[in-house]
Amino acid sequence: MSIRVVFLGTSGSVPTLKRSLPSVVVQCPRDQWMFDCGENVQRQMMQAKVSFHRKMKVFITHLHGDHVLGLPGLLQTMALMDRKEPVQVYGPVGLKDFLVCTKETLNFGLTFPVEISEILSEGVVCEEEEYTIITKKSNHAVESYAFAFVEKPRPGKFYPKKALALGVAAGELWSKLQGGEEVTLADGKVVKPGDVMGPMRPGRKIVYTGDTKPFESFAKFAEGADLVIHDCTFDDSLTKKAALDGHSTPTQAAQQAKAAGAKQLALSHISARYPNAGLLLEQAKKTFANSVLAEDFMELELPLSE
Amino acid sequence: MSIRVVFLGTSGSVPTLKRSLPSVVVQCPRDQWMFDCGENVQRQMMQAKVSFHRKMKVFITHLHGDHVLGLPGLLQTMALMDRKEPVQVYGPVGLKDFLVCTKETLNFGLTFPVEISEILSEGVVCEEEEYTIITKKSNHAVESYAFAFVEKPRPGKFYPKKALALGVAAGELWSKLQGGEEVTLADGKVVKPGDVMGPMRPGRKIVYTGDTKPFESFAKFAEGADLVIHDCTFDDSLTKKAALDGHSTPTQAAQQAKAAGAKQLALSHISARYPNAGLLLEQAKKTFANSVLAEDFMELELPLSE
Repeated sequence: MSIRVVFLGTSGSVPTLKRSLPSVVVQCPRDQWMFDCGENVQRQMMQAKVSFHRKMKVFITHLHGDHVLGLPGLLQTMALMDRKEPVQVYGPVGLKDFLVCTKETLNFGLTFPVEISEILSEGVVCEEEEYTIITKKSNHAVESYAFAFVEKPRPGKFYPKKALALGVAAGELWSKLQGGEEVTLADGKVVKPGDVMGPMRPGRKIVYTGDTKPFESFAKFAEGADLVIHDCTFDDSLTKKAALDGHSTPTQAAQQAKAAGAKQLALSHISARYPNAGLLLEQAKKTFANSVLAEDFMELELPLSE
Repeated sequence: MSIRVVFLGTSGSVPTLKRSLPSVVVQCPRDQWMFDCGENVQRQMMQAKVSFHRKMKVFITHLHGDHVLGLPGLLQTMALMDRKEPVQVYGPVGLKDFLVCTKETLNFGLTFPVEISEILSEGVVCEEEEYTIITKKSNHAVESYAFAFVEKPRPGKFYPKKALALGVAAGELWSKLQGGEEVTLADGKVVKPGDVMGPMRPGRKIVYTGDTKPFESFAKFAEGADLVIHDCTFDDSLTKKAALDGHSTPTQAAQQAKAAGAKQLALSHISARYPNAGLLLEQAKKTFANSVLAEDFMELELPLSE
C-alpha cells in the first residue's frame, strides 16, 4: 500500500491566502502521523479529507506559535466530534505547559485521552509495529527537532515457482513461509523462508525538518530518505537573513537532501514574501533535480518498494 | 461615513469549509472593533481586506476556544508585520491568564503593547470620542457577555439658508455653529447652534450577542439597535438542545430582535450540521422579517442617519 503525504500548511511564520501555517500528515493504511500543527489545521484537514477519528500521533518540531497554535482547536473539535481513540502528542519541553494552560483557561473537556510526551533526548520517539519515529535536534532559534518517519524493513518478495519446485503446495504453508516460519514437508524436508523469498525489502523513510538552518548531522539522520521535507523560508539572496533567523535557503535545503542521498526533496515553510515561489524551486533544482515546491493540499504518494 | 460590518467567521463550535470560527469586525473611518476572535481569523482578515495595522480593540464574549483561539496567532502576526499601535483586548476574567500563558509557553515577542482588561461588571467597557462599548451578561454555559457598539449622537443637520437669513456669513462662523458654539455677529446679535441646525441625530447601534440563549434584559440592552448579530446555532426543532447548550434558535433570535425594536437581525454562530442554513433564515423571518443569514465575508453597511 502507498503512503500518502498530505501538505496541510506550507507557509512560514505568517499565513497567506494560498498557504496556511505548517502541518504535514503522513497517512498509512491504518494510522496517520501529523508533523506540526499550525493554526487552521482543522479546516485544512476537512478540505484534504484527512480523518479526525483515525489512530493518530502528532509531532511538534518546536514551540513557535505558527507550528502549534492549531493543536488546542483540533483537540477540541475532535472532542466535539466525539472521538474516543487517544491522541499522542510529542514535542519539546514546554509543550505540556502550553496544552495544559490552554485547556484550563478555556475550560474544554475532552472525550479521549491526550497523551503528551516531551522529548528529552534524540533517538527513537515512538515505535509501532510497522513504523518508528526518530528525532534529531535541528538548528533553529529555539530548541527544535527534526523527525524521521521510518518504516521497518518488510519481508522479501515471495517466489511461488521456487516454492512449487521445492514441493511446497499453495495454501497454509505459503502463508507460514511468508510470515517468516520454516515449514516441514510430508517427506521430512525442511523449507526455510529464505529458500522461497528474496532479501528483506527496505521500508520507506520520510524526514521532516521543521524550522532549521543546515546542520551537520542531517546527512546521516536523513540517509537514503525517500522524501525530505525541508525548511525553505528564504531564497538564496537572503542567505544571511536565513542564518540569522535559523532558516534555510533552497540551495541549502538541496545540499542537505543531496548529502543524505535522498530520493526527493519538498521545499516548505515558504515565507509570505513569495506570492509566487517558483524562484525557490529553480534555485533548489540546480543542486538537487528531484525537488518539488510544497503547496497546500499537495499530495505525494510513496509506493511500496519492490 | 458608513460603518462597515464584516463577518469573518460565522460557524459555531466547529468550523466548516464554508464557515470559519466566530469573528465580526466593525469598521469605522478611523478605527476597527473586533468581536470574538476565532481560530483562523488572520487569513479571514486577509481575504476580507481588514487591516492589521489600524487602531483596533478586540472584545471576547466568553472563553470558549472557538471564540478566542485566533487571538494569539493574530497578535503574533501583527508583531511580525511590525505593528506599533497598541491593541486593547477586553473579555471575561481568565482572558489574561490565557494570553499570558500562550505568550510565555510559545516565547513570542510583541512589537506593540497588548492592553488586557478583564470585564468585572456590566455597563461601559470603553469609551472613545465617538463611540462607546457597553456590555451585558448574556446567558451561556460559562460567564459570557453581549456587547453593544453605540455611536454617540451626532449634531443635527446644518441649514445654510437659515444661517444666511440670520445674517451669518459662510466661513468660520458656520464652523463654530456646527461645532456647537454660539456666535456673536457684528451688530451684537447672538446666534445659537439650535437656530441654524436640526435636532441631534442618534448614533448607530450594533449589538453582538456571542453565544447565548434568550435573556430578559436583552430587549432594553439592544433597544433600537440598527443591527443585532445573534446566536442562531440550532433550528427551531432543536429548541430543547439549544436551551441545554446555552444557544438560541431562529425564532428565539427573532423574538429578541423584535422585543428590542431592532432594525435588522443577522443570524450567526451556525452549527456545522447545516451545510445549507436556509431553513434557519426561513424560521427567523416568520417572526422578524428583516433577518439575514450571516455568511463568511458578508458585509453590511450602516449608512449615516439623516
